Amino acid sequence: MTRKNPTACLLIIGNEVLSGRTRDANLQFLATRLGELGIPLREVRVIPDVAETIIGTVNEVRAKFDHVFTTGGIGPTHDDITSECIARAFGVPWEPQPVAWERLAGHYAKLNPPGDFNAARQRMATMPRGCVLIDNGISIAPGFSMENVHVMAGVPRIMQAMFEILAPTLEGGVPVTSHTVYGIGLQEGAIAAGLEAIQHRFPNLDVGSYPFYRAGGNGVALVAKGVDPAEVTEAGAAITALIEAMGHTPIQGEPD
Amino acid sequence: MTRKNPTACLLIIGNEVLSGRTRDANLQFLATRLGELGIPLREVRVIPDVAETIIGTVNEVRAKFDHVFTTGGIGPTHDDITSECIARAFGVPWEPQPVAWERLAGHYAKLNPPGDFNAARQRMATMPRGCVLIDNGISIAPGFSMENVHVMAGVPRIMQAMFEILAPTLEGGVPVTSHTVYGIGLQEGAIAAGLEAIQHRFPNLDVGSYPFYRAGGNGVALVAKGVDPAEVTEAGAAITALIEAMGHTPIQGEPD
Repeated sequence: MTRKNPTACLLIIGNEVLSGRTRDANLQFLATRLGELGIPLREVRVIPDVAETIIGTVNEVRAKFDHVFTTGGIGPTHDDITSECIARAFGVPWEPQPVAWERLAGHYAKLNPPGDFNAARQRMATMPRGCVLIDNGISIAPGFSMENVHVMAGVPRIMQAMFEILAPTLEGGVPVTSHTVYGIGLQEGAIAAGLEAIQHRFPNLDVGSYPFYRAGGNGVALVAKGVDPAEVTEAGAAITALIEAMGHTPIQGEPD
Repeated sequence: MTRKNPTACLLIIGNEVLSGRTRDANLQFLATRLGELGIPLREVRVIPDVAETIIGTVNEVRAKFDHVFTTGGIGPTHDDITSECIARAFGVPWEPQPVAWERLAGHYAKLNPPGDFNAARQRMATMPRGCVLIDNGISIAPGFSMENVHVMAGVPRIMQAMFEILAPTLEGGVPVTSHTVYGIGLQEGAIAAGLEAIQHRFPNLDVGSYPFYRAGGNGVALVAKGVDPAEVTEAGAAITALIEAMGHTPIQGEPD
């Protein structure tokens, strides 16, 4: 059952998402990857670059979920306050992290001409005491884990690189699998009773219905999802039979 | 100041977003439109189709923000539970809404062949007592407002149609405006101190820094945002001067 798996919460930190300036591109990646790891994402919050909000939210969700992932706010500018807020949330000093410090100092010294390892850049090597670094193969500045809170960059390709370094260190659960059946021309209101009966027959699965509107024809995507592949397959067969019984042609899988 | 404006929270309700199956397409639209109306979006939560979670979250955020917008979960299938959860959150009966009921019943009767206004479809006309309908020009099923909670469809074009009907009825604030200046080749770490000084000079504005990575050249987008257009313009000029002082060529506005 899904409930036995460890759970995850994502905090997307940044005014730019709340203002509409930036379209988040991290939620769907993390949702998909966490599902594959058997650490299903149970909640997402998008919050502004406001210290009290970040601290309060981190403390609320790290007590509630097994893992918390944050994206955004770990760069060198004044609005990058995630790292110091995590230190305050955990009640530990925010101080130079020796490995990150040496790495960043060395990086700027080696540039030609040498870069200035100034106060702003030093902030990227200042972290909560006791944290564990999360490396990535793209940028020199690492993320970090503080207990069950994993602090990552907001830039998608850097965040993804960090996540793939972090992922093998997380204790996963049973991967979530799904079976999707499409019914072209099918209406949700016509199939709802039959679908609800299938949900009742498979209480451990999530059975969902998602209408779509496409040039090739409107219809409904019916999805069975859960951690028991045999149950998912069985529910998929029941959904297929239901669509056929309604006089429509079921299409298996993802036709995209 | 932004703080005087009414505030908004968005609840995206649906397992399909948390599983990665569906990429949310409503956040950025609402963030942008609410900014234009002077009702800045201050928080977003993505939550699953779980009654206790929906009820608890709605009651938490409707007390905390001036407006709450929800998307998703108002269709006819068993996983569409937003409407009855809103009724439970407000402690009112969930009952047939006469106008919506008549409209839906009439719609299915007029179809050729007539559609069945069955129990599933009747759920779309069952609403919290005392709600106000939100029409839309696309689908027959309305959303509704219950006090400061505005319940809308999850399908983007229907949600957008509902929002544009709702928007003129909302008491807005002072629109949020912004000025963006791009510095190609500019590094955040080099400009951070100068940018922080500008933020301190304009405490009523949000001054943000967003690195970008493009084939045409990496760089940083620097944004001043707030409700006083004169201050935003002045801060934009200060950012422009800062980029020039760093030896880079500032580019005004959105080059996308």
